[in-house]
Amino acid sequence: MQGVMRLNHATLKEMYWSFLCCGNYNPCFCHHCCREIGMMFTSVVVVVLIPAGYSNGFRGQVASAGLLDLLDEGVPGVGTYEDFNTIDWVREKSKDRDRHREINRQKKQSDLALLLSLIDAFSGWLLMLLIGLLSGALAGGIDIAAHWLTDLKEGFCMKGFWFTHEHCCWKSNETTFQRRNKCPQWKSWAELMVGVPEGASAYVVNYLMYVSWALIFSYLAVILVRAFAPYACGSGIPEIKTILSGFIIRGYLGKWTLLIKTITLVLAVSSGLSLGKEGPLVHVACCCGNILCHLFTKYRKNEAKRREVLSAASAVGVSVAFGAPIGGVLFSLEEVSYYFPLKTLWRSFFAALVAAFTLRSINPFGNSRLVLFYVEFHTPWHFLELFPFVLLGIFGGLWGALFIRANIAWCRRRKTTRLGHYPVLEVVVVALATAVLAFPNEYTRMSSSELISELFNDCSLLDSSKLCDYISPGKGGERAANFSMTTNGLADRAAGPGVYTALWQLVLALVFKMFITVVTFGMKVPSGLFIPSMAVGAIAGRLLGIGMEQLAYYHHEWPMFKGWCSLGAKCITPGLYAMLGAAACLGGVTRMTVSLVVIMFELTGGLEYIVPLMAATMTSKWVADALGREGIYEAHIRLNGYPFLEPKEEFEQKTLAMDVMRPRRNDPPLSVLTQDGMTVEEVEGMISDTSYSGFPVVVSHQSQRLVGFVLRRDLVISIDNARCCQDGIVGASRVLFTEHTPSHPYQGGPPPLSLRPILDLSPLAITDHTPMEITVDIFRKLGLRQCLVTQNGCLLGIITKKDILKHMAQMANRDPDSILFN
Amino acid sequence: MQGVMRLNHATLKEMYWSFLCCGNYNPCFCHHCCREIGMMFTSVVVVVLIPAGYSNGFRGQVASAGLLDLLDEGVPGVGTYEDFNTIDWVREKSKDRDRHREINRQKKQSDLALLLSLIDAFSGWLLMLLIGLLSGALAGGIDIAAHWLTDLKEGFCMKGFWFTHEHCCWKSNETTFQRRNKCPQWKSWAELMVGVPEGASAYVVNYLMYVSWALIFSYLAVILVRAFAPYACGSGIPEIKTILSGFIIRGYLGKWTLLIKTITLVLAVSSGLSLGKEGPLVHVACCCGNILCHLFTKYRKNEAKRREVLSAASAVGVSVAFGAPIGGVLFSLEEVSYYFPLKTLWRSFFAALVAAFTLRSINPFGNSRLVLFYVEFHTPWHFLELFPFVLLGIFGGLWGALFIRANIAWCRRRKTTRLGHYPVLEVVVVALATAVLAFPNEYTRMSSSELISELFNDCSLLDSSKLCDYISPGKGGERAANFSMTTNGLADRAAGPGVYTALWQLVLALVFKMFITVVTFGMKVPSGLFIPSMAVGAIAGRLLGIGMEQLAYYHHEWPMFKGWCSLGAKCITPGLYAMLGAAACLGGVTRMTVSLVVIMFELTGGLEYIVPLMAATMTSKWVADALGREGIYEAHIRLNGYPFLEPKEEFEQKTLAMDVMRPRRNDPPLSVLTQDGMTVEEVEGMISDTSYSGFPVVVSHQSQRLVGFVLRRDLVISIDNARCCQDGIVGASRVLFTEHTPSHPYQGGPPPLSLRPILDLSPLAITDHTPMEITVDIFRKLGLRQCLVTQNGCLLGIITKKDILKHMAQMANRDPDSILFN
Repeated sequence: MQGVMRLNHATLKEMYWSFLCCGNYNPCFCHHCCREIGMMFTSVVVVVLIPAGYSNGFRGQVASAGLLDLLDEGVPGVGTYEDFNTIDWVREKSKDRDRHREINRQKKQSDLALLLSLIDAFSGWLLMLLIGLLSGALAGGIDIAAHWLTDLKEGFCMKGFWFTHEHCCWKSNETTFQRRNKCPQWKSWAELMVGVPEGASAYVVNYLMYVSWALIFSYLAVILVRAFAPYACGSGIPEIKTILSGFIIRGYLGKWTLLIKTITLVLAVSSGLSLGKEGPLVHVACCCGNILCHLFTKYRKNEAKRREVLSAASAVGVSVAFGAPIGGVLFSLEEVSYYFPLKTLWRSFFAALVAAFTLRSINPFGNSRLVLFYVEFHTPWHFLELFPFVLLGIFGGLWGALFIRANIAWCRRRKTTRLGHYPVLEVVVVALATAVLAFPNEYTRMSSSELISELFNDCSLLDSSKLCDYISPGKGGERAANFSMTTNGLADRAAGPGVYTALWQLVLALVFKMFITVVTFGMKVPSGLFIPSMAVGAIAGRLLGIGMEQLAYYHHEWPMFKGWCSLGAKCITPGLYAMLGAAACLGGVTRMTVSLVVIMFELTGGLEYIVPLMAATMTSKWVADALGREGIYEAHIRLNGYPFLEPKEEFEQKTLAMDVMRPRRNDPPLSVLTQDGMTVEEVEGMISDTSYSGFPVVVSHQSQRLVGFVLRRDLVISIDNARCCQDGIVGASRVLFTEHTPSHPYQGGPPPLSLRPILDLSPLAITDHTPMEITVDIFRKLGLRQCLVTQNGCLLGIITKKDILKHMAQMANRDPDSILFN
Repeated sequence: MQGVMRLNHATLKEMYWSFLCCGNYNPCFCHHCCREIGMMFTSVVVVVLIPAGYSNGFRGQVASAGLLDLLDEGVPGVGTYEDFNTIDWVREKSKDRDRHREINRQKKQSDLALLLSLIDAFSGWLLMLLIGLLSGALAGGIDIAAHWLTDLKEGFCMKGFWFTHEHCCWKSNETTFQRRNKCPQWKSWAELMVGVPEGASAYVVNYLMYVSWALIFSYLAVILVRAFAPYACGSGIPEIKTILSGFIIRGYLGKWTLLIKTITLVLAVSSGLSLGKEGPLVHVACCCGNILCHLFTKYRKNEAKRREVLSAASAVGVSVAFGAPIGGVLFSLEEVSYYFPLKTLWRSFFAALVAAFTLRSINPFGNSRLVLFYVEFHTPWHFLELFPFVLLGIFGGLWGALFIRANIAWCRRRKTTRLGHYPVLEVVVVALATAVLAFPNEYTRMSSSELISELFNDCSLLDSSKLCDYISPGKGGERAANFSMTTNGLADRAAGPGVYTALWQLVLALVFKMFITVVTFGMKVPSGLFIPSMAVGAIAGRLLGIGMEQLAYYHHEWPMFKGWCSLGAKCITPGLYAMLGAAACLGGVTRMTVSLVVIMFELTGGLEYIVPLMAATMTSKWVADALGREGIYEAHIRLNGYPFLEPKEEFEQKTLAMDVMRPRRNDPPLSVLTQDGMTVEEVEGMISDTSYSGFPVVVSHQSQRLVGFVLRRDLVISIDNARCCQDGIVGASRVLFTEHTPSHPYQGGPPPLSLRPILDLSPLAITDHTPMEITVDIFRKLGLRQCLVTQNGCLLGIITKKDILKHMAQMANRDPDSILFN
């Protein structure tokens, strides 16, 4: 009862502290507290800061035995994790349940506690709201800034340098609808510098300025990343997948990463490099989620709960990247998350919606759409068109598989050769090459989003784009009427010279994008893959679409076109082909399925195209899977050696637990502690001799019967703590893990040290005959770090997550030493 | 190698058989084969029918020991389950992996095997296609038939009795748009019988005919259910949830159930009872899934794989019920499924789409929509309207919670009192009451779907419904212009007398529906809850909506309406309120969240209303949860005592595994087998003395060290089989579970019986100190049936799923004996 009242008090203080200490609170800051000044103060702080559920986690396990001992308060640091380690899901969830139970118990006792419990219950929703608002706002800011900087490469607004091209000409009176991007206020660099808008010298000036800005932006981006936040590079999705599976990478989702990633993402996108902002936006949203978690004790102190929030945050990222809240939630569920309870599903959905609405109210594109390439198709498609759609799927699958191979080969080269030593130079060189090659071609000069938007677009009568340069009398009378006018001005389209030029430029752009993306993804700048993949697919799709359209136009008497493609009827929509191509390529690279279809469905806003979309993405996935099982994110996870147990991969081997466990046949026996037979010195010796992150505790060396499991980190901290703070603990003190400490002190000997509170009494143990497929399943589903192996009740060995990953690598004939961390 | 070649052969035959024997193949039909004539033949059939992966399942587990013994071929029946038992997910998945491995191995050896492996790989997709087609077709048929029968209650088409009212008048030349349901070809019963269309006698005749038809339909429905398929009653969702969690109810998804449920669903819906077809459609789709599974060995033989298919089928059911494929998949994920791997997500989505397109091509409502109450709103909503929306949420939550309590109390009364003995009478009485009370009120006389459709509908200028009887000069000049005409003919609406009449009728309909639904749900006819719940909510919402509208009209000078509700502006959409009310009530009853929002979003086809929807459903869920944690399905599962381990419910208690395991403190010790110390007679004695479904095997009674676990059913079948078919096995034969059978026969004694192949060498064991919350988690995530409890390596007890459910019931102060099955 005494404990109850104090805890009540402590909870209050904790809530207060949680608002003061957020961000820089470090639970490990007083490991060796004894030597520090102000020990009194810190110990008070520690008592306050240790969450109620925390020390209870351990107490809970021994509560039924009625034990309350010296370590009851919890030693600071016990139960936390080191960097590059895997969390113990079972323990974290247990901690959270203890906390929840404590709050439930207290709320029956006082009104204040009831209020606090209500606040606690709604903190999850509040957190989601905050994440949605912040991520939406950041995404809007990134969109606007990137738009502005991209336009800056081409010219300058005389009304104010902060206007984008479109903005600049919007309010201009001289702007006509037909030429809405031409206005006197907007000056190209050539106009500003040499005073002429066109001609060779103007071209050269514009070219040089374009390249210079690209170099400046990319240089700034890579320098900022290198100097302030090395974790800000790449798309971040492989790392987030790994973190969500339980790995700890300190600082990966920190405030510096957020700040630098936001800034450098704008720079990288504006530099014209072949990269997108969609993947990095997921990283940005996850950083927001992680940082905002610090506001709430419930999430700050619990690694498992925090991962639930991060799952929701990754849904938010996709929601703002594509304006697709449902697609975002499914993306998080399908692609990123590891542990996704239903509660999280509902909250993710809420957060994704909040973010989408925040972004919509910012309205970065001025058209109340969340993405540049939103389209609303309503033209029907014909059953026979499924054949070209499947062709697009095959192209997407092939390109996806080849891209992954090429990119991984290039990244491996970067890791292993001297290329990796010059990241800044690499970025600048690639940016230079990209800018130099991109400028001459209209379709590569524009940003990838604009390109996709133009390719998705179905030509209307007023379109001034080259892609819509059809020979048709309907088009404002600009061309001579070669063909009879039909009732529908949109039908009856023969390609004009503009379309033929565009075709060649698109082919060149396709080749260029395909190659440059391979070397771009993985550089030390924020870089997403969605947009480049979609661009490649959209170009291929549009090319095929125009081809089909012209085929149908010139050969509408062919049996396959008969009936639905008669002269004068509109039958082929090249924009739809571009969209399907984009979906197919994205599917080939990422191997997304449902989420991809739903994202595209939310982008196009109609159920009509679900069948073509399914056909294209399914083909793409099958083709790509036939050439290599891994998507780009899994491939990068493996390349980087993260300890990620792929939940989708089926374990095909017939091995048993005893083939995987350590020690192997000829190894020295397993290092175990006995429950009452060792001294502090012996234990310390074992800790320094080995590097294992935990030790099983057995009844005795002879019987090898399992009692429990103790973590190295907990052991080290507890012994250090006892040595400095507990009277009489010396090297010769006996270490006890038993339930009852002997009532009388040992004759003549020093008092024993009871470490029962840090002993995990419920380690999971499997038998040596358990098939590995079941073992892998258990590891995946329960989120284990290690599992003990017994034979007829006797401890035989141990299997860690790393052992499993190594074994799986061996079985797949890969290098088992590529798995770096625990 | 010998085994390999034969298996290759067997696989081929198996594929052949699978097409011949589907439907009536029963793996248990030759248990006691020896006594039957034609034993040679049956044994051949058995060898062929036992799937490749099946016998390999066991072989796989002992393969590393290099054992191949007498039982290698598998004894027929070993590894199957009895009715009302829970499957072992781990074992089933293991079996499937073995099968997959075998196919993978074979496909490298011959081209034919490669082809077969490809067929095998695509069989899942083919199955989904078939389920989608069949379910879509059935749903279309049900819609059309129910529509026709419902209209038959009111009248008769002279052109042909098979025409519905709408169809009958469609092609009539005398039909005007305004009165499209009036045409000479359609005769009401009064016109046919007494020859006058209106007046007191006509009313009485119509009333009597309406009641008579209702009685006939409901009587037919309940008689058919009772006589042919008792499982066809109810909504089926609680049972499907239980089945998906691993329970076996033979015949629940069989062909009789499918046939009878389809027919009686049409009858029950047409009878005018307060029930819907949405829940039963899920059951129908699951029946289709289960029956079609018999076409493919992969799914026929594996209970776990079949449950994946059933998860997809339940998505199909919702997809056709609401025309919401994405919502259906999320419903399956959120509400129904237990084990939902990502592969299933993708396939469910495919199947749901196929079904939706099949239904669309059948076009049961003649408007190319999949549901009667599809709406396309485009009117905006105001921020202040969130207040009434939240009020609707509160209403929905309150009604949901109260409905669940009342319905469960009523169903319990039915179970425990004599009421339950007269199911036919009950249905007829309720149908009579419903029909008698429903006829006088226009809004209860029409079917619930039509009612919802009318309530959702936003009044347009041409609407002839009473609900749209606004005083406005825009309305075809039918009324005198009391108010100034505005530019927008829809705005500026004061309610006319029709609306006031409608209001009273709606209030009466609301009270009627609220009461009658409580007694209707749970009767012995197919009955869904979605439509009645939505109807209640839609009525309440429409009432509130009209109230708000009139308030805004008469008090548009109030500060809260200022700015957005000025005179002449359209500001309140009563149809939107009806929709939100429907969502709130449905949410309160079922506690669906994301899937509900997505279904409503697919019904209305616009992201604009997601915020109001979220507000209403979230409030509803919170309010309902505060009054009672369980949704209607969980409540019915508990009422029926199904062994369902709710994955959403948090286990809050602090108990340990040792508090739950059997034997309890004063019980006799655990019944165990020893690995080599018992005779066949002793084992048989233990089997007949106890009723446990499995026995742990230990090294010896003294040491109690765990070796493995053996299932009662496997043991009985193996011993029976050995006694009749294996030479020299008598009661005194020793039963061996050890790895090596002694090379020389026992001196003088009979030969031993090795039962190692049926021994599960990898039973999961936890320690006695494992907290129950972790144990429950392990049970849920791994889908266990039982788990052994050890202490310091010695076997202490066993925990079954039933023990956990009983313990949870005890902790929640419920009757622990309500859990009926294992």
